[in-house]
Amino acid sequence: MHAYRTHTCGALREADVGATVRLSGWVHRKRDHGGVLFIDLRDHYGLTQIVAKADSEPLRILDGLRAESVVTIDGTVVARGAEATNPKMATGTIEVVADSVTVQSTAAELPLPVAGEQEYPEDIRLRYRFLDLRRETLHANIVTRTKIIRDMRRRMEDVGFTEYSTPILTASSPEGARDFLVPSRIHAGKFYALPQAPQQYKQLLMVAGFDRYFQIAPCFRDEDPRADRLPGEFYQLDLEMSFVTQEDVWNTMEPVIASVFEEFAQGKPVTPAGSFPRIPHAEAMLKYGSDKPDLRNPIIIQDVTEHFHGSGFGIFASLVESGNVIRAIPAPGAGAGSRKFFDDMNNWARGEGYSGLGYINIKDGVPGGPIAKNHGEEATAKLIAALGLGPNDGVFFAAGKESQAAKLAGLARIRVGETLDLIDKDRFDLCWIVDFPFYEYDEDTKSVDFAHNPFSMPQGGLDALNNQDPLTINAYQYDMVCNGFEIASGSIRNQSPEAMVKAFEIVGLSQADVEERFGGLYRAFQYGAPPHGGMAAGVDRIVMLLCGAQNLREITLFPMNQRAEDLLMGAPSAAEFKQLRELNIRVVEPQAKA
Amino acid sequence: MHAYRTHTCGALREADVGATVRLSGWVHRKRDHGGVLFIDLRDHYGLTQIVAKADSEPLRILDGLRAESVVTIDGTVVARGAEATNPKMATGTIEVVADSVTVQSTAAELPLPVAGEQEYPEDIRLRYRFLDLRRETLHANIVTRTKIIRDMRRRMEDVGFTEYSTPILTASSPEGARDFLVPSRIHAGKFYALPQAPQQYKQLLMVAGFDRYFQIAPCFRDEDPRADRLPGEFYQLDLEMSFVTQEDVWNTMEPVIASVFEEFAQGKPVTPAGSFPRIPHAEAMLKYGSDKPDLRNPIIIQDVTEHFHGSGFGIFASLVESGNVIRAIPAPGAGAGSRKFFDDMNNWARGEGYSGLGYINIKDGVPGGPIAKNHGEEATAKLIAALGLGPNDGVFFAAGKESQAAKLAGLARIRVGETLDLIDKDRFDLCWIVDFPFYEYDEDTKSVDFAHNPFSMPQGGLDALNNQDPLTINAYQYDMVCNGFEIASGSIRNQSPEAMVKAFEIVGLSQADVEERFGGLYRAFQYGAPPHGGMAAGVDRIVMLLCGAQNLREITLFPMNQRAEDLLMGAPSAAEFKQLRELNIRVVEPQAKA
Repeated sequence: MHAYRTHTCGALREADVGATVRLSGWVHRKRDHGGVLFIDLRDHYGLTQIVAKADSEPLRILDGLRAESVVTIDGTVVARGAEATNPKMATGTIEVVADSVTVQSTAAELPLPVAGEQEYPEDIRLRYRFLDLRRETLHANIVTRTKIIRDMRRRMEDVGFTEYSTPILTASSPEGARDFLVPSRIHAGKFYALPQAPQQYKQLLMVAGFDRYFQIAPCFRDEDPRADRLPGEFYQLDLEMSFVTQEDVWNTMEPVIASVFEEFAQGKPVTPAGSFPRIPHAEAMLKYGSDKPDLRNPIIIQDVTEHFHGSGFGIFASLVESGNVIRAIPAPGAGAGSRKFFDDMNNWARGEGYSGLGYINIKDGVPGGPIAKNHGEEATAKLIAALGLGPNDGVFFAAGKESQAAKLAGLARIRVGETLDLIDKDRFDLCWIVDFPFYEYDEDTKSVDFAHNPFSMPQGGLDALNNQDPLTINAYQYDMVCNGFEIASGSIRNQSPEAMVKAFEIVGLSQADVEERFGGLYRAFQYGAPPHGGMAAGVDRIVMLLCGAQNLREITLFPMNQRAEDLLMGAPSAAEFKQLRELNIRVVEPQAKA
Repeated sequence: MHAYRTHTCGALREADVGATVRLSGWVHRKRDHGGVLFIDLRDHYGLTQIVAKADSEPLRILDGLRAESVVTIDGTVVARGAEATNPKMATGTIEVVADSVTVQSTAAELPLPVAGEQEYPEDIRLRYRFLDLRRETLHANIVTRTKIIRDMRRRMEDVGFTEYSTPILTASSPEGARDFLVPSRIHAGKFYALPQAPQQYKQLLMVAGFDRYFQIAPCFRDEDPRADRLPGEFYQLDLEMSFVTQEDVWNTMEPVIASVFEEFAQGKPVTPAGSFPRIPHAEAMLKYGSDKPDLRNPIIIQDVTEHFHGSGFGIFASLVESGNVIRAIPAPGAGAGSRKFFDDMNNWARGEGYSGLGYINIKDGVPGGPIAKNHGEEATAKLIAALGLGPNDGVFFAAGKESQAAKLAGLARIRVGETLDLIDKDRFDLCWIVDFPFYEYDEDTKSVDFAHNPFSMPQGGLDALNNQDPLTINAYQYDMVCNGFEIASGSIRNQSPEAMVKAFEIVGLSQADVEERFGGLYRAFQYGAPPHGGMAAGVDRIVMLLCGAQNLREITLFPMNQRAEDLLMGAPSAAEFKQLRELNIRVVEPQAKA
């Protein structure tokens, strides 16, 4: 007989009744029942009920053990009988009567219970992550995560991609975030950087003639904690293809991502491959006030600026005269409710730093509120007709400079949708946002900068760069969005050295700057570079969506806390003087923050 | 028609004759043939011959392009005819007559040729790695590497393992090598470390109740350059299992590794799964003078110490009296050859810093050389009979302290085997080396230290630690060896907190030291730890063996050079002052080496 087990704790069935078996696992729960001890023995595969008879040696041993001790049980499989069967357990028709018990490892008093799912303080959960990970939901989430990644890999391979690992100790990459640096011991005063993304390497792979690359790639950004990003590392499904247009990337990846979602959506509807809406960026900003719209929300924002030229509602009229825009956010059915909803929305907008949200509340066909009153009956009726509002709908108005009004309208759209419960939570709505602007105007620096990826191909190429107002140039750049989250981003790359130099010149960087910062890639483009493009999908975000988790720590094995500390392993920690001397660095006192 | 291609450059066959096609790729070779231009157009998938007719526009364009420029060709598929067919090319029965050519990217003068396989200086190859990677052998090696890793993954999943990714920004790990450090921005004066191996995390996974873990794991050691290790990162097939004995690990992994080898051995024989020899460490040191024996070498070392007690060959007799050993290394058939072979071997041993290699050369049954002469006729005959030597064999003798004699004998065994051409290169001979000693005596520090992995379970457990001479304790620790290379290493782990503390106490570390250095793991063992064990296989080494490559850079995408520099990306490089200030570190002048 095997030293530890003949079966796992999820394996035994009624057909095994009568068998002599050996099981090993953790003492999950103990119940005393009239002198008989019942143990749920747990391993990775399931639970099996163990029975220790009254006055038996197994009972004596098991009774003295704390939950989460590890034991090996020798025993006999017996049928539970109909009345004692537990239909929720795969092994629920049998139990194992213990003949002997070997204690493999005793558990000290637990700082965190494993059985049950009650909330526990995060610092305890992270410090005792090995206990936390034994808990049912987190354990299942981690297993689901590995299955999703395995499924992604298989599907990428099935459509002709090959996984290549790119270096982790590398040079600073131009993703715009802060690098993690690694001091070089051999080259005093020099540093490696951990990759923010394998962007340059994957492009180099295309230039090196590998056609379809993918990688489940670890990426590193030393950014301040954010709710939607763990400190330290995160994973991308990163890919790149040669000799493709953006439609090829979309047509290749839409089935992959849709299939992954379908596989793990547990029956929830998923936008089918081939029917992801392709929404131009400008349209998304208008209709959803966001470049990552939640399409489950039925509200569509409309521009109503024209309606307020010379309106009796003087605030809007004068805003419109001075070049501002007015955006309308319908609130279906809200007119029938209390006015408090409208006032609350207005207060919320003010709390967010905006000057407020105007509104019209229609009750039984009668428009109410100050805007309707001042705008005039006829003009209001025309506005309501244009917006297609019903006799008990409401509508909010966001006014201001275009980008501000769009942003406020987008936030209001989300809030109205949530408050009115218009969003079907049990659905995955996927779409592409396309035609992103290549440049943007930075109000702080009063200069033109790249809006997103400087390596993207501007639509119109070198010709557009030479002859067009930069702020009107779009890029072959696209995001994939699900339920209001950006889950992937990509572009067709600019593989022309001339266009690359020109693109950087527009943001004030010289050819020498390009050569210094992106020398590897720039040099590569001189020696025969294929047209290429690709994207990167956020593995963590996709897993979160599919697991229904609210926090990245619920789908990550050993996360750091929001202070970027690994409480389990004690990282970061002080280095020895000898180590620092070898690295030719010295720690200095932190400067007071300005 | 697609913007870039209707077919890849490896796709067209005779059945396509007459088709109008579009191909894109690199201009691999150009040949002018009586006014007609032939181009081999290359992509990831293959080569297709393009014909540009005399005086045509395609000829004019292609004639002006350098090799490695990227073009798109529109043309018609025509049959080559029997006499022009190239049976070495998959597309060798057809060619494409170009109707038009679009230049996608021109190539500057090449610093490194792509067509052909001539040697090129390494710094040029690394600086222009994107060109180097286009070359046939390196390109094929990289593809084979990805296929091997994919095959490993599939086979691990097939036997019930799940891949979990462990953190890369973590705490210093106790593998004994130097860590790469990453300064923390948020915690001034503290550092993360890149993992030397995921050893502690995989053990924590077992304690967390995940049963069969594996990972294609990036590992990082800041060690000085070695021929068999690239600077920076390397990859392990890392795995761990719960509730197992070492036999379980062997029986699980032997089929996986044997199958991977068989899949990629290109027909060369591989030791079949189930028949890997399991050689105790002590036996390996005796018979092969190495813990990584090349079993393709038929020579078996024997201990002949007893034969030289009181021998007439006084040097050996007195060495034996003072506690040294004599090891015999047979050299089959060498006696028939010249005596120069024996003298060369002796000189080589002296060059290696040993006092020399004694020998007997038997010619037509007559033993020759000073040892035979002094040892005496009868005793020599007895020695030769004991060694089973034939009438024209030779034998070398390594004398000294046991460890030194074993080492010299092992080196001599390799040299004799190679010189006499006894090694069948076209074979993969796999074995396990088992029962490694747990401790060793460090001559430098005059103290007992761990021989290998401090986390291994000593055979006999706590009882052995308490009651046995530490230097006689073996560990449940094993290596897998192929053709003289260690390709994997593993052990059953010590999961008992008491035994862990005792094991470290023997090398002079206190419980407080254990808690400080390995706190995460030590703490975890207090709360129910399953018996567990595993191993880690060197992916790079296995790929090298299977590709027949002599250098890790021939199987690695973007390797650093031996000075730990990435010449393509320019890493490491100076950091900006702002970056260092944020990290609270300062670069100091390197100290003069002592």
